[in-house]
This record gives sequence, structure tokens and C-alpha cells, in this order.
Amino acid sequence: MARRTRRRRRREGREEMALVEKIVQPLRRVPVYALAEEEVIETIHQKSLQVLAEVGIAFYDAETQAILKAHGVTVREDIAYFDPAVVEEYVAKAPASFTQLARNPERNVHIGDGAVCFAPVYGPPYVLDWERGRRASTLEDFHNFVKLAYMSPYLHHSGGTLVEPNDVPVPERHLDMVFAHIKYSDKPFMGSVTSGANALDSVRMAEIVFGAERMREQPALLSLINVSSPRRFDERMLGALRVYAEARQALLITPFILSGAMAPVSIAGTLVQMNAEALAGIVLAQMISPGTPVIYGSFQTNVDLRSGAPVFGSPESQIALLVGSQLARRYNVPFRSGGMLTSAKIPDAQAGYESVMSMLPAIFARVHFILHAAGWLENGLTAGYEKFVLDCNVLGMFDTFLKGLDTSEDAWAEEAIRTVPPGGHHLDTPHTLRHYRTAFYQAPLFDYSSAEQWESQGKKDAYHRAHEWVRRWLREYTPPPLDPGIEEALQDYIARRREEIRKQPPEV
Amino acid sequence: MARRTRRRRRREGREEMALVEKIVQPLRRVPVYALAEEEVIETIHQKSLQVLAEVGIAFYDAETQAILKAHGVTVREDIAYFDPAVVEEYVAKAPASFTQLARNPERNVHIGDGAVCFAPVYGPPYVLDWERGRRASTLEDFHNFVKLAYMSPYLHHSGGTLVEPNDVPVPERHLDMVFAHIKYSDKPFMGSVTSGANALDSVRMAEIVFGAERMREQPALLSLINVSSPRRFDERMLGALRVYAEARQALLITPFILSGAMAPVSIAGTLVQMNAEALAGIVLAQMISPGTPVIYGSFQTNVDLRSGAPVFGSPESQIALLVGSQLARRYNVPFRSGGMLTSAKIPDAQAGYESVMSMLPAIFARVHFILHAAGWLENGLTAGYEKFVLDCNVLGMFDTFLKGLDTSEDAWAEEAIRTVPPGGHHLDTPHTLRHYRTAFYQAPLFDYSSAEQWESQGKKDAYHRAHEWVRRWLREYTPPPLDPGIEEALQDYIARRREEIRKQPPEV
Repeated sequence: MARRTRRRRRREGREEMALVEKIVQPLRRVPVYALAEEEVIETIHQKSLQVLAEVGIAFYDAETQAILKAHGVTVREDIAYFDPAVVEEYVAKAPASFTQLARNPERNVHIGDGAVCFAPVYGPPYVLDWERGRRASTLEDFHNFVKLAYMSPYLHHSGGTLVEPNDVPVPERHLDMVFAHIKYSDKPFMGSVTSGANALDSVRMAEIVFGAERMREQPALLSLINVSSPRRFDERMLGALRVYAEARQALLITPFILSGAMAPVSIAGTLVQMNAEALAGIVLAQMISPGTPVIYGSFQTNVDLRSGAPVFGSPESQIALLVGSQLARRYNVPFRSGGMLTSAKIPDAQAGYESVMSMLPAIFARVHFILHAAGWLENGLTAGYEKFVLDCNVLGMFDTFLKGLDTSEDAWAEEAIRTVPPGGHHLDTPHTLRHYRTAFYQAPLFDYSSAEQWESQGKKDAYHRAHEWVRRWLREYTPPPLDPGIEEALQDYIARRREEIRKQPPEV
Repeated sequence: MARRTRRRRRREGREEMALVEKIVQPLRRVPVYALAEEEVIETIHQKSLQVLAEVGIAFYDAETQAILKAHGVTVREDIAYFDPAVVEEYVAKAPASFTQLARNPERNVHIGDGAVCFAPVYGPPYVLDWERGRRASTLEDFHNFVKLAYMSPYLHHSGGTLVEPNDVPVPERHLDMVFAHIKYSDKPFMGSVTSGANALDSVRMAEIVFGAERMREQPALLSLINVSSPRRFDERMLGALRVYAEARQALLITPFILSGAMAPVSIAGTLVQMNAEALAGIVLAQMISPGTPVIYGSFQTNVDLRSGAPVFGSPESQIALLVGSQLARRYNVPFRSGGMLTSAKIPDAQAGYESVMSMLPAIFARVHFILHAAGWLENGLTAGYEKFVLDCNVLGMFDTFLKGLDTSEDAWAEEAIRTVPPGGHHLDTPHTLRHYRTAFYQAPLFDYSSAEQWESQGKKDAYHRAHEWVRRWLREYTPPPLDPGIEEALQDYIARRREEIRKQPPEV
């Protein structure tokens, strides 16, 4: 019922896209595409076990090394060597799926099984908009992107570091970001991973909203642990990983790989290394707290071998994504990949081509969590306001595609086929009139007018048109209600922590 | 060897893209994606047999009706009713694959099996370029697009009506178009379908180049027969179909359907109608000349139900494409679908998003011939010069993707993984140095520079950058050698026919 209401409302006109509606994640009703034979998946598995056992993974953190040793891992000179049996034992403890809490329970997201979750861009230090161009991002930009992500019915998640709030001192940023996710949205969000202490602040703030006990049962935070490929977890990430695993909060373990730079120049070799790195992180989380929800992450593309610059939407990265999703399936854990990725500096044709090229394979594959599903530009260095709403507009297409072919009785339209004469039209058959409001997804930001109409309306390209949507979305934004007691408690926590942080000696 | 040389040459730098090289069609080394269950395919098959038997297809051509009647089809008031057994009998006569001749034998294309053939845009009456904007197309534009298609290593086919030569009288256009394909390219091309007489001119001209006898063994023409959906073949198309089938030239039978207008508003219903229409055309061709090569075509999208305008890149059309390819597989005939389709008026972000959204599913599906793979804009009303080269640039990605995952010994890169230390880099390992020239596809028209470099180079968007490529390609174009005797014979034929046509009374 909720689903039908949402569909109807969405389709009734362009106006509807900006409305916040009850989020229902798309459920995959189309088959999963398996690119590689099972024996290739097994080969990658075996070769990565060999890497874990013989070549090892560096963990630059004494406490992590102690945990690994306590669970039968050999550590020599910061490098951990994993026995295959130990890897298999601990990977098996990771849950196949989990539900992340949102402060509005109707927006809880399911990660795994047939559910797909779209989350916005993560990490850019710059923003771009049509009017002002490219500039360093601020806390105000951060707030704006939380609001835009809240407004889109196709983003199920508020994300994490949507943009860097460069105007806030680095040691305090995480407080403002977590607060903004809670204040300006009611969708699930991600915790800080910049240090163990910042992760702990994220957990404490989430506990104010969700309660510590409830959070041990179901995670309220999902946090992104990047592996510093090749074969290295750094101290800050490990500090955060330990805090979250101890609190049983969900972790997204992602080898971040540009093939040819941080991994071999070949995709097969890259997949072996990626799998070893992902397994190492998953195993560590399970050693700390068995059953901690984890997502097998993959963020892989290749470098342009003339300039060393990253290339997004490459065919090689599509192959790695598709095979990566098969690896995660082998371990029965949810998979993360994809995103509307591009190397373009502005939302031009290149951005459009590359974004769908990066994203569509994830829709065909077994992918459960898609970060950077909206807003990404310039290799992730810039969050584009217009790119953000254009991407959301395209996410609705994936949502529709995932529903697959409707083969219900009425969908066969037998009567309509029989009654419309040769060369006639179906525009006003009873069948069409019964279904036309909900039959097709309408992409509100795409122009379907004639060339003449388009010219008379000022020849606006998609970038320009999207700018008007951004302004409208931000104008129409209304915050979701937040319990004043909770807001006050959060404010108190932040004030206290800000004071403590400011008293700390600067890091060297 | 040819393949390796081509790869190497392509990868050696951006310069290489514009070179005409030996064309090697991509062979699908990745699995085919089957969206629908086999029982759904069977249901569509049965329901379309019922439509053919009980609802019928109109053939507005007395000679065609006579052929149908002579083969056991009931015809009443222009509508043909096909017995299911007759349909099954004649569909089975269509070959599973065929090779279309090119005047350069190295550019022959295989249609069917694992081969994929990319052909350029077909039919637009307008062209667009960055400098001059949108305008009615001319014969000069036609020549230019033949040249561009000849220059791209990723287009295996010269296509047909690349753009309408509006400055040539309608009754003579087909002569100039067929001549231009032969003169300015040596890739295979399509014949005229605007009437039986024009089709015959196409056959006669092809015979001058290929010889009539050889053409009966292997087709030198592939021609596009659109069904005027719903359930109607018109006289002109039927005239052309008869000529080509009698000459055993290949036919692309394509129901051209906008769901909600020319077919039911539901995709399941659309597929039933589309399948009935395609089968009717295939059966007719086999009745005329058993074994005539045919391609099961599908050109389906939906209308925007508020404005009635077509919508390209829609998720519904992806579903229809994927299921359509499964239907063609059921009948063991090659399938045509896809294309870089868009409703955008210029190559902006919308054009990029929609083009890949239309095209990528065809790469995952069992599709053999992809028309409109380069140049399409504005619902097919405009051929874009810049869009053309941008699309070619993206076709190279599909070519690479279709090769799948390389699992040869060296691709596992075991030594490289072992020797690069944690946090090190692979930029100069022996493995990288051995492979870096050929490891990744480089899209020459996409910008991978930094934002600062991009700004210092004039902040050019993809549309602008592509314009420079168009100019360069046309400047660097060199025609393939053509036997002077053949050229003269063609010129003589054209001169004679032009005279005859000019003497004919104008059509009413």
C-alpha cells in the first residue's frame, strides 16, 4: 500500500520529485548478472588466501596487532599473516544482511538480500554550482547537501562526509557533520572515521538518539573504512574500526584501488589483492566482535597510464565491479560498489556518459549499498549541486528497472491489442487510461520538448536546468521534526566535546 | 595478430583513434544477461502466435497479399491471419547468422553468434554542430558522416540514411546516398527502403561493386524495414522488402514502437505485439526466399504520457530490450536493438546519461546489430557531429568490456603483488611496464586532467572539445581507394537513372 501510494504520488507530475516521501528501497526483481565462471571466483579466493598467508597485510596499530595475535594471526614487523582456516572461520561470522536504524523508523534501510540502498557522494573538499563555480566547501554546503539528500525519494541514506566543512576546524568537524545529519534529515547516516576518538563521538551522539542498548541489537551507524592499498590499514582507520566493531556498528570495508598504481595493472591481479584486503578487514571486525555487520566494499578503477590520473566509468572497472560482487556473494556478505562516478569537472556529456557507465553495472550485479550515487564530480574532489539533482533524477530510472517486467494479468493488455486497429493508437484505450499515471518513470530534469520549444525556453542545457531545481529544492526544504530534548542533549554533548578538543595540544 | 596490433596501435596515444584500422568486431566473451524466465518468453511467444492467428497484421500491398495467400495465410480486408504452424515453419528457415560483404573484404561484418556490430545513426533530417547550430542536413553533411563513420575504428558499418540529404530531390536521394557509402567508405552499408524501385537501384548499384552472383551467396546490403506499428506494414516498405528478399539481401525487420502510443502502455503487452509484428515480417521474407538473412529488430521506447513525446533511455525500454533479445534467441535469429539514444537537443549531461542508459543494456544482452550507435540527438531528428565522435569514444569502452576478464597466467600478477610493499605503488613494476600500453582503454575525448589544468585550457566542456575532434577527423580523412572502372560504372548507372526519374510524373 505504501509502495503504491508512493508510486502514484511520484508519477503525478514533475512537482512530486522534490517531496520527501516514505522511502521504500528498491527490491531487486531482476536476475543478478554473473560475469565470471564460478571456477574463476574460486581461483581469486584461493590466490587471495595465499596473499593473506604468505605476503600479508600491514596493520599500523599496536592494539590491532594484539587483537590479531590473540586470534591466531602471526604478526611480524607490522605485517599480519593469516592462516586460511582462520580467515574462513571469521569471515563466516559476518551476517548476510542487516538493517541500519534511521531516527525515523520508516526510513530504516535493509542492507543485503534483494534490497538496494543509494547513498550520496562522500568526501569532496570542493563544491560546484552553476552560478558560483568551484570553491572550497563549507558547513553551509554540508547542510545543503544533507537537505538535498533528504529531499530525494531515491536516496535512502544521508551518507557521511557529503562535503568537507572546510570552515570548521578539523578536530571538530565530525561533531558538526553528525549533528547536521541528525538535525536536517531523518535518514540513516555514517559515522566519522578520522580517528578512534571521532568514531567514539559518533557513537555517543548516535546513542543520544537511538539508545545504547538498541544500537547493540541493530546498528545506527555505518562507517567507511578505506584500506590504504596496497595491503595496508593505517592507524586512524584502525582506531575507528575498533571503536565501531566494539559497539557493533556496521562497517563498510573498502579497498580503494586505482589499478596500475595501488594494485597491478591487470584486473585479475587487482581482484586478488582487493579480495585479500577486504577479507583482512572483515576478519578483523569479526575477531573484535563476532557478528558485527560488515559490507564487502570495492572502490576500484584504473589510472590513465600517461598522466597517472584516475579514470572513471572505465570498462575495466565495470569488469572488476561485476566480479567483486560475485566474490562478496561467495562469502555471503553484502556488497558495496558503483556510484555515479566521473572525471568530468562539470556536469557535461562526459559526466553523463561516465556516471551511467559506472553505475549501471552495479544495478545488474549483486550490489547492496551504492555510495556516491549522487553529486560526484572531478574524481570525487568536487560535489556538484546540479550533478546531485541530475543523478537523483537518474536513480529513479534504476529504481524502476529493478522492479523488472510486470507479468500480471492486466499487463498483457490483450483487449487493447485486439481492439486498436492496424495503424491506430493506444493513447486513449481503457487500458492506457487505467495505467497512464503510473506506467512510466518520468525523469523530471530531462527535457522531452521539441527543439522549437526548447529553443524558445532559452536553450538551457541539463546543467542550467538542474540549477533551477537545486534552488527550488533548497527553498522548499522543511526539516523533519526532532525531539527538543534530544536536540538539547546533542548540543550539550557537542559543546562539552568542542571545549575538550580545543584544550588538547595540537597534533604533531 | 591483427587484433593485437590493433590494440597496441589504439592504445599508443590519443592520435590513434582517428586512424582507420583493420576492423575487428568485438566478440562477446562475457555472458548474456537473461532478464525474464524462460516461461515468460514462452508466454510471449504463445500470445503473439494468438495475435497473428486471431487479430492479424495488415499488409497494404496486393502483391504481398498474393504471396501470403500462396503460402497458406488467410487474408481478409488487407489483414493477414497466420496459422501458428505456418509461422513456426517459416521462422525456422531464417539463418542463425550471416556475413555481410564490404567492398574491403577485411571489413566484412558477421551478424550473429558472438559478434557485435555497431552502426551509425539513421534517418535524421537535421544536423547540429557546435559552431553552426541546428540546421537542415545536406548531401555534404551526408558525406561528412560517411567519412566520420569510416574514420572510427569502433563503427563496423557505414549505416544507411546517415542524414537526409535535403538539398537533393527526394526521388534521387537514394542514388547519391548509396554512391557516397561506396565512394567515401569501404565498410558495409544499407540499402534504400523508400520504395521497391529505390531498393532495386540499391541492389543494382551493389551488383556493380560485388557482382550479382556473389551477392546471392552472401548479402552485400542490409536494409531496414520498419513496421508501422500497430500491426501494419505499408506499401513502400513492402515493396522494398520484396525486392531485397528476392535478391537474398539481408533485412532488418523492426517494429518501431512507442509504448502507450503504437502499442499498449504496458511492456508485457508491447512485447506481445512487437513479437507478432517481427515474426510476420520474418515469415514473409522466408516465404519470398527461404534462407534470406534477417535480423529480428526492436526499436522500442515509451512516450511521455503528459506530452506524447518519446522518452529515450527509459528503464522500461531497457526491460523491453533485454526481453526482446531473449525472444530473438528463441527463434535463433540475430537481434538488433540499442543505440546511443537520447531526447536531448545537444550533447549535454542528459545526452550522456540517456545514451549509455539505452546502450549498455544491449551490451549485456544478446544483441548483434546496434544501429544509432553514434550521432543520435533529439529523438533521432538530429545527427550531432560532436555527439557522433563522443559516442565513438564510448563505443571503445563497450568493445573493451565485451572482451571480459583476462585470466591468463600473467594477468594474475603474482610477482607484482608479492614485491610491492604495503603502501607502495605499482607504477613501475616489471608487470606494469610490460602491460601499460595495452592495459586500459583510453577514451581520447574524455578529460582526465586536474581542475586547474582544465581551467587553464579554457574550461571546455565535452561538446566543445568534441568539436575540435570533428574538425580534425574531417581534415585528416583520406578516401579508401576505389577501382576507377567501378566508379565510372556507378556514375553511369546514376546518370541514367537520374534522367529516368526526372522524366517520371510527380507522385500524387
